[in-house]
Parts: sequence; structure tokens; C-alpha cells
Amino acid sequence: MRFTSRASSDGVLTREFLLDGIPAVLRTPDGATGTRPLVLIGHGGGQHKAAPGVVARAHRLVSECGYAVAAVDAPAHGGRPRSPEHERLIGALRAGGDPTPVLTELHAHLAAQSVPEWRAVLDALRTLDGVGEGPVGYVGMSLGCALGVPFVAAEPRVRAAVLGLNGAGTSVEAARRITAPVEFVLQWDDERVPRDAALALFDAFGSTEKTLHANPGGHGDVPAFETDSAIRFLRRHLG
Amino acid sequence: MRFTSRASSDGVLTREFLLDGIPAVLRTPDGATGTRPLVLIGHGGGQHKAAPGVVARAHRLVSECGYAVAAVDAPAHGGRPRSPEHERLIGALRAGGDPTPVLTELHAHLAAQSVPEWRAVLDALRTLDGVGEGPVGYVGMSLGCALGVPFVAAEPRVRAAVLGLNGAGTSVEAARRITAPVEFVLQWDDERVPRDAALALFDAFGSTEKTLHANPGGHGDVPAFETDSAIRFLRRHLG
Repeated sequence: MRFTSRASSDGVLTREFLLDGIPAVLRTPDGATGTRPLVLIGHGGGQHKAAPGVVARAHRLVSECGYAVAAVDAPAHGGRPRSPEHERLIGALRAGGDPTPVLTELHAHLAAQSVPEWRAVLDALRTLDGVGEGPVGYVGMSLGCALGVPFVAAEPRVRAAVLGLNGAGTSVEAARRITAPVEFVLQWDDERVPRDAALALFDAFGSTEKTLHANPGGHGDVPAFETDSAIRFLRRHLG
Repeated sequence: MRFTSRASSDGVLTREFLLDGIPAVLRTPDGATGTRPLVLIGHGGGQHKAAPGVVARAHRLVSECGYAVAAVDAPAHGGRPRSPEHERLIGALRAGGDPTPVLTELHAHLAAQSVPEWRAVLDALRTLDGVGEGPVGYVGMSLGCALGVPFVAAEPRVRAAVLGLNGAGTSVEAARRITAPVEFVLQWDDERVPRDAALALFDAFGSTEKTLHANPGGHGDVPAFETDSAIRFLRRHLG
């Protein structure tokens, strides 16, 4: 684990780092020591660890909750190298037609790489003073949900997950294995995710506590009050 | 309008009253003067204006938000007289079989009476010092939703409604006419309301802002955090 930058703003310390060549970023309260909850944020498709939505959520979770927050560039995202298989699948997506089978294949391919990467990032971050071995949360919409479902299913340290804007095709089998509380965000008129597929993914979660929040509008129209709700949900479960 | 009882507890003044023979109850902060938001709570089937869930919500809305809160016994509920038509429909329900068509008929029959009654209660309450002509909210689950949907559709003074635990059969046409923000509560494993009917009712609301909250469990298992959410939703819209 190698820190590559360090900046402080409004009480939030932002440190970029590389772990085995994987670019990631950690935010903690300035001067944090000891142990605190750690939230991992998964970015959307075509985005990266410094996308505005990721940064804004991370700042709120650090400032309002005192949490540590990390984000990692997904494979083939944020300037990370693309394999011939990545190129083939991304090309197939851009060629048009029904994206669902291509996305399912792409997500499975990316998750096979991202799940062990994110688990290694957790291992490394939890050795740091100011992070420590507290409860872990996960937040990810769209691609961040597609990669988040198999991650949360594989990772017993995750105690609460905010997921959404994705359907069942990708990950219904992994969803059944999730037992941590889930808040699931669905856009009623999502032009990219069929409503039935999203409802089926919510249905599949094995969690005793799971809550579905659906609102009108398209994939990009999640109302601001859902960010407030996600923060309350994480606080309720991570403390 | 004739007040029939008056009691104060923990800063909440509770006054029962009759309006044209209809039994109702008003709660306000002790010593309230001037104008404040008014929330009407519709009770569930077989319940009445003093059911524990109604009282608990009313106390929170008065104590935490400073609102005025009213509840009215629905027709044929809380000791109100039953017509031969009420008896016939309630008897048909108790006879077993598919309850959906009977409930649809019963709800329509009750709403034809309750909608004008509740509007008259609003008219009367809004003349009182300590209530006044502020924004109005509505909260009703199950029967309170079945009667609430046509009430909210008919009543432009309602600026926000928390509804749920009911399906489309009863009131989809009225739901289309609703434009006030709606928070809709759905139980994923509701043994009384088919999931598709509840989703269809959410789909039907004409409101630009509507938000669906679904949780696992049966008709009576709505989690406590949904009460917190309902209060936040009302605060956001009523001030």
C-alpha cells in the first residue's frame, strides 16, 4: 500500500493510494486516530473513484458521521488498463442492441476481478490508525451495485449496504447469499434497468432487513433526499 | 362542532368532539394559538380513532413537529351505526373466499360517506385558534389508505400524504388524480394485499413526487423506522 497524495479540506483528509497497482482513495476526518466505521463506495459505469457523486457522498459521510470512506477504480475504469475481453464487451455495448446480456457478461467479468481487489483494500485499510477494524458499509449504484452485490455477498465484514439502479440479470444468485441489511434504490422509469428486473433483485436479497425506495424518473434522477436516507441507514447500522 | 372531552398529557392537549354526530379527536400542543399544519390520520379496518397506532403517531406529530392532528371514526367503525349495506358487506367478508371484490365494494361504499365527512371536519378545525388555515397532511394505512386515496384526490388543501398497505382495486382512478407528494408504504409479503396490486396503486399516483418504501414481512409488520420516515416526509412538505 503506497500513499501517492495527501490533501486536507474542510476537516476531511483525502489520501490517494495504490495497492498492488490498483488506484484508490481514502477519506478520514482530519487528525483521526483509533477505530471508526469504514464505508466503501463503488462508482458507476464509465466513472471512477473521483467522480463528483462519489466525492460528495464521501465528504458527507466523513463530515457528518466521522466515518472513513474509500473508493477504488473498478477494473477497466479510471484509466486502468483494458484487457482484450474488456475491449470486446465494451465494443459490444457501444454497438447498440439489447444491452442486458452484454452487461450481464461484462459485470460478471469485472466482478471476478473487483471482488478480490476490494477485499484486499479492506484488509489494508483496516490496519491503519484512524480506520481500524470497525464495521464496514458499502454504497454503490448502477455498476456500483452490479459489482457491489457479489462483493457484499462474499464479505462478511460488510454490515450494511446501499445498492440500487441495477437489475437481477447480473447478480441474483449472489443477492440470495446477502444477509446484511440492504437499502435498495430503484428509479420507477429507469431507461436502462427494466423495472421487473430491479424488483426481482430486491426480492432476491436474503437479508432479513431490506428496504426498497422507489421514485419516479430515469436512471440519473434519484432525488437528493435518497442521499440523506442512505446516510441515516448507514448510521443506523454502523453506529 | 361540540367538544365532549378535554385532557392534557406530556404537553399534548387531546379534545374529543362531535361534528354532526361524527366522533372525532383533535390533538394540539398545550396552549397552542395561531396557525400550524394539520394532519388527519385515517385508522385501519376494524379500528377507530383511538387505536394505539393512531394515538402514538398523533402524539409524535404534536410533540416533535408542533402540528395539530385529528382522527375521525370511519363510517361503521368505532361504535358508529351500521347500515344494512354495511352489514351485508362485512358479513360477506367474514364468510371467507376472495376478499378483493368485497373489499373494493366496501371501501367505495365507506368512502362515499367518509370523504365529505372528513372535508367537513377540516372546514371546522381550520376555524379554531391553534389550528388555523395552515397546510394539511394525511396519513392512512390499509383502510386508511383505501379511504385516504379518494379523500386526498378530492381535497386540494392536502399537501402531502403517507399512504400504504392497500392495492389498486379500490382506488386507482382516484389515485391518478392525486398530485400532492405521496410516501407509499408496501409490505413485500403482505398476506392481505397482492404485491402487484400495491405496486399498481403506487404506479397510478399522479404526483410528480412519490416515493415507495417496501419492506419484508406481512400486513402488520411495518418496521418502526417507517414511522420516523413518515414524520420526516411530512415535515419536508408541511414545514
